[in-house]
Amino acid sequence: MERIERIREFGGWLDRYRHDSDSCHCSMTFSVYLPPRAESAPVPAVYFLSGLTCTDDNVRVKAGAQRYAADLGLALVMPDTSPRGDGVADAPERYDLGQGAGFYVNATRQPWAAHYRMYDYVNQELPALVERELPLIPGRRSITGHSMGGHGALISALRNPGLYRSVSAFAPICNPVECGWGRGCLGAYLGDDTASWKEWDATELIRAGAQPIPLLIDQGVDDEFLRDGQLRPETLSRACEEHDFPLTLRMHPGYDHSYHFIATFIGEHLAYHARALAKA
Amino acid sequence: MERIERIREFGGWLDRYRHDSDSCHCSMTFSVYLPPRAESAPVPAVYFLSGLTCTDDNVRVKAGAQRYAADLGLALVMPDTSPRGDGVADAPERYDLGQGAGFYVNATRQPWAAHYRMYDYVNQELPALVERELPLIPGRRSITGHSMGGHGALISALRNPGLYRSVSAFAPICNPVECGWGRGCLGAYLGDDTASWKEWDATELIRAGAQPIPLLIDQGVDDEFLRDGQLRPETLSRACEEHDFPLTLRMHPGYDHSYHFIATFIGEHLAYHARALAKA
Repeated sequence: MERIERIREFGGWLDRYRHDSDSCHCSMTFSVYLPPRAESAPVPAVYFLSGLTCTDDNVRVKAGAQRYAADLGLALVMPDTSPRGDGVADAPERYDLGQGAGFYVNATRQPWAAHYRMYDYVNQELPALVERELPLIPGRRSITGHSMGGHGALISALRNPGLYRSVSAFAPICNPVECGWGRGCLGAYLGDDTASWKEWDATELIRAGAQPIPLLIDQGVDDEFLRDGQLRPETLSRACEEHDFPLTLRMHPGYDHSYHFIATFIGEHLAYHARALAKA
Repeated sequence: MERIERIREFGGWLDRYRHDSDSCHCSMTFSVYLPPRAESAPVPAVYFLSGLTCTDDNVRVKAGAQRYAADLGLALVMPDTSPRGDGVADAPERYDLGQGAGFYVNATRQPWAAHYRMYDYVNQELPALVERELPLIPGRRSITGHSMGGHGALISALRNPGLYRSVSAFAPICNPVECGWGRGCLGAYLGDDTASWKEWDATELIRAGAQPIPLLIDQGVDDEFLRDGQLRPETLSRACEEHDFPLTLRMHPGYDHSYHFIATFIGEHLAYHARALAKA
């Protein structure tokens, strides 16, 4: 991997890398924040998966997360939201399909299957790469994300018991098989067999008996995409109740879907992950 | 003034307003962050003046300032960097002149003089407006800014003893009469009489005997515009030494000119202003 940018922040380093991805068969870009503590010893990492239309840049500029990561001694790993490039399938007229909208699944249908393997990328290739190349404690990882990335964080933790010490999400797409964004992406990437979509849906994974891991979710009550039925935390909450699955769902009146909402609560999420990551 | 956006953040409100400006003879947009404390009592305000190419949006999205303002009980007032609109003079081929580059002066030369009166706008019109319409303590103000806006903050405090309780700046243009950005703007807005430029130059104001007020300035050592000679903190520092003017200039190795640099130190700046603003 090649470092293409390095910025000093909060006494640590905000770096951007480019590498050739075996999962996505294209060049991928990601950012990592290394806290000051990483100068002297390896540190645990929190993965942040971003939402529709984002790259690795939005969260590092807008979320205010580095301040807390510096204090808590956490690295932040911030991948892109899809494969990209001229040779990568896209739906340029749509913001919610194709480049910028990988949905954190492994696509099985062409033209998407050639590159859209964000699930393998985020859960296998990227952790192996950064744990080999950077001062990170191998295997000491937690995961969070926003909107489509909140969905990505939830399914990554639910499908891989033990891979993440803790998981949280901001305004996640909780039940993609039942919402417009999810049906559009899952239909394109996986085809018409809707039964196969359920493996990529947090609510359905819990209904199917996923191994329990506590979920911490923050959701703004005045989020336009909540009102539009894209997020559906109520269906996730019901599934958790019915299956004794541990969920802390905090509904915040007045808050919207923006990074201002994320910025307000990211400190609490990182502190939560830091506690889980500190255990032996 | 009309509120055109309202976003919940850190328990307070990030609002955007539009109004017809008497100083700039056009419609102006600005943002205000009101901390939770403003729900029950008026609060002091810190003005943040932004740099070249920015609007009121950059700082509110990128600086991470609202987190500290919420804790400290400070309002943030974030004006635009110039008059704007179809009828406002511009140099569309240049990022460092015209719209987005008002330089916080009162222009005297046409076509600029018709609208470019950011100095009056920032120091008189805007404070009077927001202190009348919002829960702010009248006259309880401090000022800071970045780059061109750091220059604006310094000259605003130096030219108006008593108007601001405290002043600070991030990577300010300290001696605009001697740098490319400054000479370009001051020449266009004020004409060829370079003697008249000195009233709008922090270093020259100190040389001319400005009334002392402590200056807090942070500067990244790896700032490309420092290397290019646009910022010149060394000339300001020399003038302060020669005139017994109180300056705290902190040079930070590794830091650049970006909002990542601002984000790293804005908490200390706001705490500094909060102490000055808390005095009776």
